[in-house]
Amino acid sequence: MSKNYELKATEGKARAGVLKTRRGEIQTPVFMPVATRGAMKAAVDFPDLEGTGAQVCLANTYHLLLRPGEKRVKEFGGLHQWMGWDKPILTDSGGFQVFSIKSKKITDEGVWFNSHIDGARFYLDAEKSIQIQHDLGADIIMAFDECPPSRLAPTNLELKKEDPVLWAKKQEKRLYFKVRKAVDRTHDWAKRSLDHHQKNYPASLSPIERPQLFGIVQGGCFQSLREQSLAEITALPFDGFALGGLAVGEPPEVMYEVLDGIAHKLPKEKPRYLMGVGSPQDLLEAIERGIDMFDCVYPARNARHGSAYTWDGIIKITNAEFRDDKTVLDKNCNCTACGKGLTKGYLHHLMRVGEDLGKRYLTIHNIQFYQDLMKLSREKIIEGEFSEWKKGVIKSLVTKD
Amino acid sequence: MSKNYELKATEGKARAGVLKTRRGEIQTPVFMPVATRGAMKAAVDFPDLEGTGAQVCLANTYHLLLRPGEKRVKEFGGLHQWMGWDKPILTDSGGFQVFSIKSKKITDEGVWFNSHIDGARFYLDAEKSIQIQHDLGADIIMAFDECPPSRLAPTNLELKKEDPVLWAKKQEKRLYFKVRKAVDRTHDWAKRSLDHHQKNYPASLSPIERPQLFGIVQGGCFQSLREQSLAEITALPFDGFALGGLAVGEPPEVMYEVLDGIAHKLPKEKPRYLMGVGSPQDLLEAIERGIDMFDCVYPARNARHGSAYTWDGIIKITNAEFRDDKTVLDKNCNCTACGKGLTKGYLHHLMRVGEDLGKRYLTIHNIQFYQDLMKLSREKIIEGEFSEWKKGVIKSLVTKD
Repeated sequence: MSKNYELKATEGKARAGVLKTRRGEIQTPVFMPVATRGAMKAAVDFPDLEGTGAQVCLANTYHLLLRPGEKRVKEFGGLHQWMGWDKPILTDSGGFQVFSIKSKKITDEGVWFNSHIDGARFYLDAEKSIQIQHDLGADIIMAFDECPPSRLAPTNLELKKEDPVLWAKKQEKRLYFKVRKAVDRTHDWAKRSLDHHQKNYPASLSPIERPQLFGIVQGGCFQSLREQSLAEITALPFDGFALGGLAVGEPPEVMYEVLDGIAHKLPKEKPRYLMGVGSPQDLLEAIERGIDMFDCVYPARNARHGSAYTWDGIIKITNAEFRDDKTVLDKNCNCTACGKGLTKGYLHHLMRVGEDLGKRYLTIHNIQFYQDLMKLSREKIIEGEFSEWKKGVIKSLVTKD
Repeated sequence: MSKNYELKATEGKARAGVLKTRRGEIQTPVFMPVATRGAMKAAVDFPDLEGTGAQVCLANTYHLLLRPGEKRVKEFGGLHQWMGWDKPILTDSGGFQVFSIKSKKITDEGVWFNSHIDGARFYLDAEKSIQIQHDLGADIIMAFDECPPSRLAPTNLELKKEDPVLWAKKQEKRLYFKVRKAVDRTHDWAKRSLDHHQKNYPASLSPIERPQLFGIVQGGCFQSLREQSLAEITALPFDGFALGGLAVGEPPEVMYEVLDGIAHKLPKEKPRYLMGVGSPQDLLEAIERGIDMFDCVYPARNARHGSAYTWDGIIKITNAEFRDDKTVLDKNCNCTACGKGLTKGYLHHLMRVGEDLGKRYLTIHNIQFYQDLMKLSREKIIEGEFSEWKKGVIKSLVTKD
C-alpha cells in the first residue's frame, strides 16, 4: 500500500517531508491556518489564503456541529465545496473545544455539553466525532481524545498556608491522576475512533484514497504518562500522530521539555502534528525536536489586535511611531499588503480609524509570515543549515518581541 | 484643447459617453463606489473593486482631512499611492459632510465645525477645500458648495394647529429663503473654487493633464432656484457639472421631477453627475433623464445589513428561507462569491454566525450588481433599446423589493 508520508531530509531530529492526501501533497514542516466556522476571520478569503502559500487549512468540528450542522454541510457537498477551498482540510475532533466548556458532563462513554450559543444540549463521543468529520468531508481527521487542563483550580487553601510545599505536591498529585485518567480514556476513544473510521473506510484502502485519521498522544507534562500514551496510541494503525494537551497554559520551556522527551519517539514513517502551537519561536523549537505540522490562531488573532510579525520581531502597528512610516511591514514579505507597497503608515491609519480592511491586510501578512517561516525551515533542513539559521532567526525575533 | 467628455450615443435624453481623465478613460454611465476613509468598508480591497469592473472610486475630503490629514496623504505620494488604487479618484468638497454636522458656524466666507471624533475645531472654505483635494491628488475634484436640507425643523407649532395650510406655506417659504441663500453662496464659492484651482492648474492646461474641477448646481426642489443655479454655475468654465442637494430625504418621485426639469439642460458637452444617488431604480430613472455619473453608499451599506441585490429584487440573506439554498445569489452574476459558486446557504451561514467574510462577499456582490447595471445601461443606450429594457428591469426589481 502506498505510504502517506515521505521523509525527504533530516537534520538532527528536524525533518523535511511530504504528506500525501487525496487532495494533493503537503510539504512539511507545514503551518495550517484556522478557518474555524468555514471561513477565515477578518474577511480573509480562500484565494487570500492560497496567495500566502497555505497548503492546508483547519476547520473546527465543534463550531460546525453547532452551526450550520454537519448534515447541512454534507448536503452542500462537504466543506470544500461549501466554503470554496479545494486543497486539503484537517478537522479537529471537537474534543478540545468541548472540554473547555464549563457546563459539561464527561463519562467513559462520551461528553454531554451545552452549546455556547443557545444552551442547546449536545452529545459527542468517539463514534459521533468521526461521523461528523466524515460528513464534513475533511481529508485529515482527528481521533476523539480527552484534553486535560495544564493545572487544576487550587483547593485545600488552609493547607496551602500551613505547608505550601506539601500542598503543591498534593496539587500535582491530583493533576497527575486527572491526566492519567485522560490518557486512559484517550486510548479507549482512540480505538473506538479507529473502529468507526474503518467502518466507512476499510483499512484496505490506501491513505491517499480516503480521509486519513490521526491519533492523539496525551499525558500533560508528565513524562511517564506521555510515554504511556505514546506507546498505546502509536501501537494503533493511525495515519499520523499528534501531540495534544500542550500550549494549554504551561510555559514554553515546559512544552519544549515535553517535546524533548517525546517528539522524536513518534513513528518516523508517519507525520507528526503538534496541536494548537504556536509562536514563531515555538514552531522553530518544535521543528528542531522533530515536529512536522502545526495549527494556531495566533497569527490571525494578533493581526486583529494590530500586531504584525516581521523578521525583526512583532510590531504594534497602531503605535504612533508608525503614523508617518513609509516602509512596508517587512521588506522580505510578498503578501497582499507588502507586495503592493502598502505602507505601515497606511495600515496604521486603517487600524486607527477602524477600517476592517486593516485587519484583513494584517491577517494575510501574518499568515504569510508563518508560511514563509515554514518554507524557509524546510529549505534549511534540506540544505542542512536549519540549526544555525534557527538560532539567528530566534535572536532577531526575540530582540524586538 | 482636447475635450474631457465625448458623447458616444444618445437615446432620448439618455447618454453613453467617455470621460477622459489623466488616469484613464471612464465609460459612462458610471457608478463610483465610495472609499470614504481611503478604504472600502467590509474589508473589500481595491483588487476586489477592480474585479467588479469599477472604473473610478470616490473618497471623502471631510474624513481624510480629520484623519490622517491631507498633508500626511500628500507626503505619502497622494491618495492613489497611499491606498493602492491607480484608476481615477473623485473627491467631494467636504461640504456635504460638514453641513450635516450639528455643531457648525456658517458664514459667507466658509464654515467652522467640530470634528465628530474628538471635537477639534476645523475650518473649511472654497480655497481650503480645493487645496485639500489638490493635496490628496484626486483626478476629479468638486467645488465647495452649500448643501441645504430638503426640509426644515417645524417651528411655530401653534399656527400649525390653527391653520395647517397657512403654516405649510410659511414653512415652505422659510425653506425657499434658506435654499436661495445656499444657491447664492454656492455660486460665490464656485467662483472662488475655480479661481483657486486655476492658481495651481492654469486654464491653459488640457483637462486630461490636470485634475478636473466640477461645479455643483443647488436649488433644492424649487425649479426656479434650480434654473438660477444652473445658469450661474454652467456659465463658469468647469470640467463637469453635478447636481447636489438631491437624495437628501425627499421622495424619489420629487427627485425625478427635479431631474425632469433640469438634467437635460446641463451642458451637453460635459459630464453630468448626480451626487449621492441612489437605488438601482434611481440610477435608471436618472440615466433616462440625462445623467452620466453616480456615487452612493447604498450597495455597500445594504450588504453589511445582509441585503443582496439581484435582477429579481433585493433579498435578505439572513432570512431562514436561504439556510438550505444551494443556488448562488444571482445566476447572471460573476462576482467573487457567485463566480466561485458560493451558495446563498453558505452566505446565510457567514452572516448568521457573524463572519466578516460574509459582509465582504455581499459588498463585492452588490457593487458588481451596480457595475453590471451601468454596463448594460450603456450597451442598451448604444443599441437604442435602453427605454424598453429599463421598464422591464424596474418591473422585476420592484416586484420583490
